[in-house]
Amino acid sequence: MEKSESRIDFEKLKEIAEGCETVLVKLPDGLSQLATGISDFLSSAGVEAIISANPCYGACDFCDCIDGMGVDRIIYVGEAEMPYLRKKYPVPASFLEVSSRFDAAAAVKKALPLLEGGRIGVTSITPYIHQMEKCLTILEEAGFTPVVGKKSRRTAYDGQILGCDLSAATSVSDIVDSFLYIGDGYFHPLGLSMSTSKPVVIADPSQNRATDDIEKAKERMMRKRYALISNAMGKNRVGVLVGEKLGQKRMELAHAVKGMAEKRGMKAYLVSSNNFSPERLDYMDVDFYVSTSCPRIAMDDSDRYRKPLLTPIEFEILVEERKWEDYEFDQIL
Amino acid sequence: MEKSESRIDFEKLKEIAEGCETVLVKLPDGLSQLATGISDFLSSAGVEAIISANPCYGACDFCDCIDGMGVDRIIYVGEAEMPYLRKKYPVPASFLEVSSRFDAAAAVKKALPLLEGGRIGVTSITPYIHQMEKCLTILEEAGFTPVVGKKSRRTAYDGQILGCDLSAATSVSDIVDSFLYIGDGYFHPLGLSMSTSKPVVIADPSQNRATDDIEKAKERMMRKRYALISNAMGKNRVGVLVGEKLGQKRMELAHAVKGMAEKRGMKAYLVSSNNFSPERLDYMDVDFYVSTSCPRIAMDDSDRYRKPLLTPIEFEILVEERKWEDYEFDQIL
Repeated sequence: MEKSESRIDFEKLKEIAEGCETVLVKLPDGLSQLATGISDFLSSAGVEAIISANPCYGACDFCDCIDGMGVDRIIYVGEAEMPYLRKKYPVPASFLEVSSRFDAAAAVKKALPLLEGGRIGVTSITPYIHQMEKCLTILEEAGFTPVVGKKSRRTAYDGQILGCDLSAATSVSDIVDSFLYIGDGYFHPLGLSMSTSKPVVIADPSQNRATDDIEKAKERMMRKRYALISNAMGKNRVGVLVGEKLGQKRMELAHAVKGMAEKRGMKAYLVSSNNFSPERLDYMDVDFYVSTSCPRIAMDDSDRYRKPLLTPIEFEILVEERKWEDYEFDQIL
Repeated sequence: MEKSESRIDFEKLKEIAEGCETVLVKLPDGLSQLATGISDFLSSAGVEAIISANPCYGACDFCDCIDGMGVDRIIYVGEAEMPYLRKKYPVPASFLEVSSRFDAAAAVKKALPLLEGGRIGVTSITPYIHQMEKCLTILEEAGFTPVVGKKSRRTAYDGQILGCDLSAATSVSDIVDSFLYIGDGYFHPLGLSMSTSKPVVIADPSQNRATDDIEKAKERMMRKRYALISNAMGKNRVGVLVGEKLGQKRMELAHAVKGMAEKRGMKAYLVSSNNFSPERLDYMDVDFYVSTSCPRIAMDDSDRYRKPLLTPIEFEILVEERKWEDYEFDQIL
């Protein structure tokens, strides 16, 4: 608790909440232990906090029914803004970013010997994005030319990538030799590798290590995705998932998938939810699902479902509107 | 599937959906296998169905983010209307009630020898409410005087009770000798027994049986509730749960609970959600919870939580604003 709390910029929190009577506080799972501390602090500043116990996976994630709760402002803790959603929240939203305490520079130094070529596309994610400048300096001092792609409508910072928006990488892919990913996990670098086909080196500050072992993970993932598509082959009944969250709602895409299915004589069902889960979907008498919601749902959670759960791009491959060779990461651009 | 489908009044469904381009179909868990059949039928009538995969526990349960989805009408399957919510849904809502195929008359006949006194308060729940008339006739023919309480702002039929609204019983409690409950489960008859202190006989059509064994269940329940209150005693940090669902949002009550807690020197935290679950609450550094959302959450789900989960009335007992002897069922009236 103590350790985590010190990461919150309480001065900024106070500024954000100023003039509000009631704010809704949204935190991702990893920061949820901060909720009561934030509520205490706001209370002492004369602001009432309502802690949202709905899951929160980013600035795209808003599906809270706050009518009549007197909420003046939504405060996302640990998330960066998605600029294009600014005017779409029911009340103004602010973003109290939380920087990681892990040193990105140390991990980047370990990554230097692994980098291929001279021009390096540099990408990172919200917890580490504020350490970008010092990482670029390290690269320059080592003789590399770092290239940082511009932010998009869904990202707040140059070089920032999301699981659903890799444009800071794809936009510079043609002019770099390889990519450096500063962050944890394999999901983002897998997306980088898939969407750019360039070598990717991971500098993971949380583990203070660097690696270029992404190819094996990519192979494993592709085998799994191929198996899911194969399992759905020849099946006739498809549930098309529509996410109800503010920045994950792709109704047009859902209709397009449904249309493609029906063109092939399949039965297609639109299924919406604010939080998809096996408990609510396994019962349906469909053969497989295509998720138009957050790309991670199909990529990370498919093991939890009894039936194949595909991305829209994988569905295109299934109905032969796209070749397996043209496999792409699903993005919300 | 076949068996269940035949219970749907497709003529009425067609009427309800007439003129709509897109409808949102909401079903409780027990009827979810009907979803694709309903979607097929609507599709053949030129109406697009979006199946909500959010849980649905009644007409009170609306927290679907349907902006931009083109929904013209919400169709609740298997639920009766809550009249006071009629104008609160974001688009018009209709209610396609589904009558149980089980014969209520047979169960009521079995209940006759168990009834106490001559004036019998008769109550039922949505799946059986349409069999009320024939049940009343059976009672009259057996020499009883059935008494049916009026519907409320939350119920669509005279004699209909909800877990959160027992007014069709409490309103006639003074003028009856005992109650007959026509329906399944023990939750509603427990509420009846608690809120009226009159003898309660259960006629359960789904099991074709009648029983007056409610007292034991009541004792068990009261012991459990007492233990939960005891476990919370002397504790200082309370999470006050606010349900985000349309008919379960009791913000004023939440503030009242918070106020009572703070008056006693406790720390109180407002926590909102569209679906409370242990996964999202167990992490919080509070000692116990008070739920102002659906009364069933505290009553049915408390075993699933690591920390005591109380009703607002139980909290009043805890802080000695109410005596244990004045225990009441939590209702949303």
